[in-house]
Amino acid sequence: MKLATLKDGSRDGQLMVVSRDLKTAVIATNIAPSMQDLLDSWAFMAPQCDDLYVQLNQGRAANSFDFDPKNCMAPLPRAYQFADASAYVAYVELLSRARKLEMPAAFWSEPLMHQAASDDFIGACDDILLDNEAWGIDFESEIAVITGDVKMGSKPAQAAEQIRLLMLVNDVSLRELIPAEMEKGFGFFQSKPTTSFSPVAITPDELGEAWNAGKVHLPLRTSLNGKLVGQPNAGVDMTFNFPQLIAHLVKTRNARAGTIVASGAVFNKEGNKGHSSIYATRALEIIASDVATTPFMQFGDTIKIDMLDKNGKSLFGAIEQKLEQRD
Amino acid sequence: MKLATLKDGSRDGQLMVVSRDLKTAVIATNIAPSMQDLLDSWAFMAPQCDDLYVQLNQGRAANSFDFDPKNCMAPLPRAYQFADASAYVAYVELLSRARKLEMPAAFWSEPLMHQAASDDFIGACDDILLDNEAWGIDFESEIAVITGDVKMGSKPAQAAEQIRLLMLVNDVSLRELIPAEMEKGFGFFQSKPTTSFSPVAITPDELGEAWNAGKVHLPLRTSLNGKLVGQPNAGVDMTFNFPQLIAHLVKTRNARAGTIVASGAVFNKEGNKGHSSIYATRALEIIASDVATTPFMQFGDTIKIDMLDKNGKSLFGAIEQKLEQRD
Repeated sequence: MKLATLKDGSRDGQLMVVSRDLKTAVIATNIAPSMQDLLDSWAFMAPQCDDLYVQLNQGRAANSFDFDPKNCMAPLPRAYQFADASAYVAYVELLSRARKLEMPAAFWSEPLMHQAASDDFIGACDDILLDNEAWGIDFESEIAVITGDVKMGSKPAQAAEQIRLLMLVNDVSLRELIPAEMEKGFGFFQSKPTTSFSPVAITPDELGEAWNAGKVHLPLRTSLNGKLVGQPNAGVDMTFNFPQLIAHLVKTRNARAGTIVASGAVFNKEGNKGHSSIYATRALEIIASDVATTPFMQFGDTIKIDMLDKNGKSLFGAIEQKLEQRD
Repeated sequence: MKLATLKDGSRDGQLMVVSRDLKTAVIATNIAPSMQDLLDSWAFMAPQCDDLYVQLNQGRAANSFDFDPKNCMAPLPRAYQFADASAYVAYVELLSRARKLEMPAAFWSEPLMHQAASDDFIGACDDILLDNEAWGIDFESEIAVITGDVKMGSKPAQAAEQIRLLMLVNDVSLRELIPAEMEKGFGFFQSKPTTSFSPVAITPDELGEAWNAGKVHLPLRTSLNGKLVGQPNAGVDMTFNFPQLIAHLVKTRNARAGTIVASGAVFNKEGNKGHSSIYATRALEIIASDVATTPFMQFGDTIKIDMLDKNGKSLFGAIEQKLEQRD
């Protein structure tokens, strides 16, 4: 099943079911007014959405219309929780190496995860509006799951059963603000402005065999100003899978329906697959020659993040944004 | 105006208006179904709630009933954002001293703030359920505001206008899990289980002269197992006031309606006012004799956090919880 949220000027938009080929959509507010409502009552409402999805794919859904990602809010325009991990530990190791720091060995055995802001997400095609290029504006291409209710102390196998939907993420980061925040020890705060998500959230079964062992085994494609800069396979070098990340989250508390857990920047250690952030490119430059030459994003730059199935069709629709200076 | 959320088995409960003396309440769902709905449409709905509040205080509200804090969820049972500050910098300095660390001087000029979990708050009289005493279970008595929409880049004066409500907070902390999380630099995560709030949220005008310059000038009283352990004045030694904390939050992004911003543990440097956490007591013991002798909370312990007006009447109702082992 594929789902999205229609922009209508309200805070939560309107729930839509989107066809598998992303060509048509239909309003599903008679089933659940919003994505959060659907997640709150998933067992009851999801089967009804799925019936509508079948009808839509067969061209028999009443009042369907052309799907336009530009009219989408984030699938969850605001969420009660967003926990962002750094599950590709080889990426963390690369960044540590560039800073001439030894990465603690424990990072390989226990997930790194931080609490992130979730009150003001933006849509897949919305401009990224920020004040200052000197903040070191960067994209970060990730994958996220949305969960149902997960009880405190759940193990990965139990957590896996609560994975409801998957999305792509642009975890926009302000690199020049990060070092001071890291030093404080309190985690990212001003260094993480609003996050963007793919127009469409999909159930794991939509991935077929590419959803395996709690990971997405497909390349995540990132293009900056129309040029492909990365296509690492999200199933490779993911040190902790999504069920493990969720289990880490609920060690000392419950996670409630609508919790978003993201993977961190997708990164492949071996091969020449490019990167999911400018920061990775700069880290390699620093390691090679002590100087980073690739600039961070400039106002006017465009960023595209997409994932294709084995037939070359977009699975989630693309995140496709322009960075602009805020008025 | 005083507001609370009635437990009814649903995720968001039902909005109530509570009388000034906390003796009676009336359901306000005909105005706004939930606290979040009220915050989403404050300008339109708050005046209607205020009319009902006047009627309730005059004993003329239809269908009013006895107010019982035990039937309250957190005023916002789940929120889209919870940012917890450490605005009493002398407290941070004390903790640093106990760890034999030099606190960075910058902490006096720029707020410390971390993104906290907000998807699963518990009510003022709900048991705190945790698995393991060895986690170093501690309370932390704080004050919080709930905001309306605050635009990116807002200055303190603009932020001040968006303060809608105030609450008391028990920011339960797992002290033995904190050092490892601090070392990672990603901030608190497993070390912060679910947070509790006072049964009632109140508008700033309810504080009268005690609400001044963005601070609450009254003692915050904390009792452990019935014994008063702290009554520091929240208006003293608060290095950053609430408008400054909110302005820090929105430097690089918007904050949307229902954002909770908390003060961090209330702490007075001078005098003998006691403390708002066991950790503060232990820090003083370590500084005096290198050994902390006061234990963290044990299963069965009770914690009470309250704030009285100058006539000795509770303003928010008390947080009054028992710590129990989770089944």
